[in-house]
Amino acid sequence: MDDDSGEDTGTEGTVAAAVDEARLREDVERNGEFGAVPGEGHGRTVLPGTEPNREAREYLLDRLEAAGLTVDVDAVGNLVGRWDPPGASGAPVAAGSHLDSVPEGGIFDGPLGVYAALEAVRAMRDAEFDPARPVEVVSFTGEEGSRFDPGLLGSSVAAGEHTVEAALARTDDDGVTLEAALEGIGFRGEGRLDAAGWDAWLELHVEQHTELESRGVPAGVVTDVTGITHCAVTVRGEANHAGSTPMGDRSDALCAAAEFVTDLERAANERTGVDPAAVGTVGRLDLSPNATNVVPGRVEMGVDVRSIERESMDHLVDAARESLDRLADQRGVETDLERGFDLRPTPMAARCRAALHGGADAAGLEAVDLHSGAAHDSMHVAAVTDAGMLFAPSRDGISHSPGEWTDWADCAAATRVLAAGLARLAA
Amino acid sequence: MDDDSGEDTGTEGTVAAAVDEARLREDVERNGEFGAVPGEGHGRTVLPGTEPNREAREYLLDRLEAAGLTVDVDAVGNLVGRWDPPGASGAPVAAGSHLDSVPEGGIFDGPLGVYAALEAVRAMRDAEFDPARPVEVVSFTGEEGSRFDPGLLGSSVAAGEHTVEAALARTDDDGVTLEAALEGIGFRGEGRLDAAGWDAWLELHVEQHTELESRGVPAGVVTDVTGITHCAVTVRGEANHAGSTPMGDRSDALCAAAEFVTDLERAANERTGVDPAAVGTVGRLDLSPNATNVVPGRVEMGVDVRSIERESMDHLVDAARESLDRLADQRGVETDLERGFDLRPTPMAARCRAALHGGADAAGLEAVDLHSGAAHDSMHVAAVTDAGMLFAPSRDGISHSPGEWTDWADCAAATRVLAAGLARLAA
Repeated sequence: MDDDSGEDTGTEGTVAAAVDEARLREDVERNGEFGAVPGEGHGRTVLPGTEPNREAREYLLDRLEAAGLTVDVDAVGNLVGRWDPPGASGAPVAAGSHLDSVPEGGIFDGPLGVYAALEAVRAMRDAEFDPARPVEVVSFTGEEGSRFDPGLLGSSVAAGEHTVEAALARTDDDGVTLEAALEGIGFRGEGRLDAAGWDAWLELHVEQHTELESRGVPAGVVTDVTGITHCAVTVRGEANHAGSTPMGDRSDALCAAAEFVTDLERAANERTGVDPAAVGTVGRLDLSPNATNVVPGRVEMGVDVRSIERESMDHLVDAARESLDRLADQRGVETDLERGFDLRPTPMAARCRAALHGGADAAGLEAVDLHSGAAHDSMHVAAVTDAGMLFAPSRDGISHSPGEWTDWADCAAATRVLAAGLARLAA
Repeated sequence: MDDDSGEDTGTEGTVAAAVDEARLREDVERNGEFGAVPGEGHGRTVLPGTEPNREAREYLLDRLEAAGLTVDVDAVGNLVGRWDPPGASGAPVAAGSHLDSVPEGGIFDGPLGVYAALEAVRAMRDAEFDPARPVEVVSFTGEEGSRFDPGLLGSSVAAGEHTVEAALARTDDDGVTLEAALEGIGFRGEGRLDAAGWDAWLELHVEQHTELESRGVPAGVVTDVTGITHCAVTVRGEANHAGSTPMGDRSDALCAAAEFVTDLERAANERTGVDPAAVGTVGRLDLSPNATNVVPGRVEMGVDVRSIERESMDHLVDAARESLDRLADQRGVETDLERGFDLRPTPMAARCRAALHGGADAAGLEAVDLHSGAAHDSMHVAAVTDAGMLFAPSRDGISHSPGEWTDWADCAAATRVLAAGLARLAA
């Protein structure tokens, strides 16, 4: 992509070159020790409001202050370090991600984006880059939703999607509120981080898929973050003795559900003809009574539909409903579909995408466009300000697992692109 | 059916008429109090070697002795009452069923057959019928397999299918052996009941389906007991992120399994064109990791295939294998089918069927031929002597449930047919 911003790519190149792989690696490795899971790979369990989460937050706080940033913690535990150099003014540019993990997750998903943002600030300072705007480094609370659902919780508050009070009242499986959990680790601050106050936002994240790896490219500029709908589907037939119930007398809930599964797959496959990002998955299926010698009486399914085009999502949900109506008609089963969790597709801002491509040019690195099939905090931020996302390669696409891995050189390369892109936005 | 035995149906008619509905009902109701389950319907939980099982056995023992029978208990707890009138000689004719239940089972499944056999002996005595052969009333240990698998355990020992030692060594989920459980309730006897020593065997059981009810007929003469094969089927694909894995890059174990489910259903439906008794069921399906937002990586299924024709069973297992081979080929999944539990179809003896039809004629009741889709102790007995089975109607076909029900008049009618049939065989 051409550099169309009119900025001095030489300066951005200097910032990119100042990114220190060893310094970045030390931070990500040290962060990976909090909640470390023994065994193969590099696993960690860092749920919001736990002791490992306190340790990870304390370490980040120290590192932000050591780099000369002023740290603030808001009421839901969102943590912000602000670099406000003399001469900088106006709305800040911000970058970051999250420190929490899924149970036995990897060390890169989240922390790479937080420490890359900090490294970008350190590189700007080392390169004696003078930004026109303040720069903020952000760690959002509870991105994964593993202890307090829904996920993307801290960013949803920062974007005004949920209130502080509603978020603090969320409870874990033991009935502990987010508020009590944050107070317990000393990270229930005051006020509300307001993402609408940022001029722009960037987030670096691991890809969690194989497109960059298979193309041999170190950086992916996200065009859109997928929309996601979850549907709860129920099929009710009649449980019966598998021996004494002739084939013609059955109302087998699993046979009906099986047709639904292949109907949804076919509809999603067909949709990729006009929308390659469209996916439909039956990921959960619970059978009742689930005994080999009993004709299944009831099936409950969890359906996941995604695309970067809202129309495709609606099309696939419609196809699911049509399949269920047909099965009710042809097989005499009762069916039900409830569309629950629903996030709209989120395009990234053109100026943020341009800044990241410009950053790649300045760093002398190749970058390609791709979409994100996973949800990220940037979806909420994009609702209130210009947002962009950058992906680093994931070995074999593995994530949410101790097997998650991104080579340190790849971490550094993507951080160079981020730093140069952030410099461009802050200039 | 014509009476082709040359016996005196007038005498059999007198035996049938001597069946006392109130006496039979009192026994079945009293037996239903042992292990009774509170709540709707008439439920009981009587697992082998438990206190309710001891109570049920003690009551039966008392009732057998009160009717003038000599009681014996063999090493695996099979309980036999023998009526050996003066003038009777040679191999005995026997009838009975089982007293154990599934957890929260009904009060008729098993006990009706035991107490109908006892009532048949009482009716013969009341009618002053002099049998040429001794008559035995039998309760087999562990028919349901709910505490000690496999099911049909006591009859398998009586038929020489399993040794006494092997049966006694079976353990429950807590590691308790059948031997210890029987000793604990004082019903670990000596020797081995030998079904091969019987001249003939009859078993009355509830139908567990709706054919008699829907046809309005009080008695069903079983032509064949179904064969049963269970297959353990595994489909392995690749678990992946439901958002970041495009449709074309997936190896979805559930989509493949869904095709398998409908393939098996289609094959079974087609087979009913030549064999109406053929059935194929996927009754169990366990998905892994079973999360809405993850493409399924592995599916394990339990398949139940039955027919009264061995060829149909083999045909359906072959069809299952062909489906899996096709799916491995077309979808790149790994598949596996293991044929485990396997009982061959068992035709009932012509002379026993004739005796039951003759008994129905003598009792002035209609009887129809049907097959049994469920397994019964009579399958094992049929391997070593002439065996016959009779069904009584089941309301709505419900069984293995507190909702299991057969009207007392229907219980008595079927017992009249059994008593007259037994008299014919013993004459």
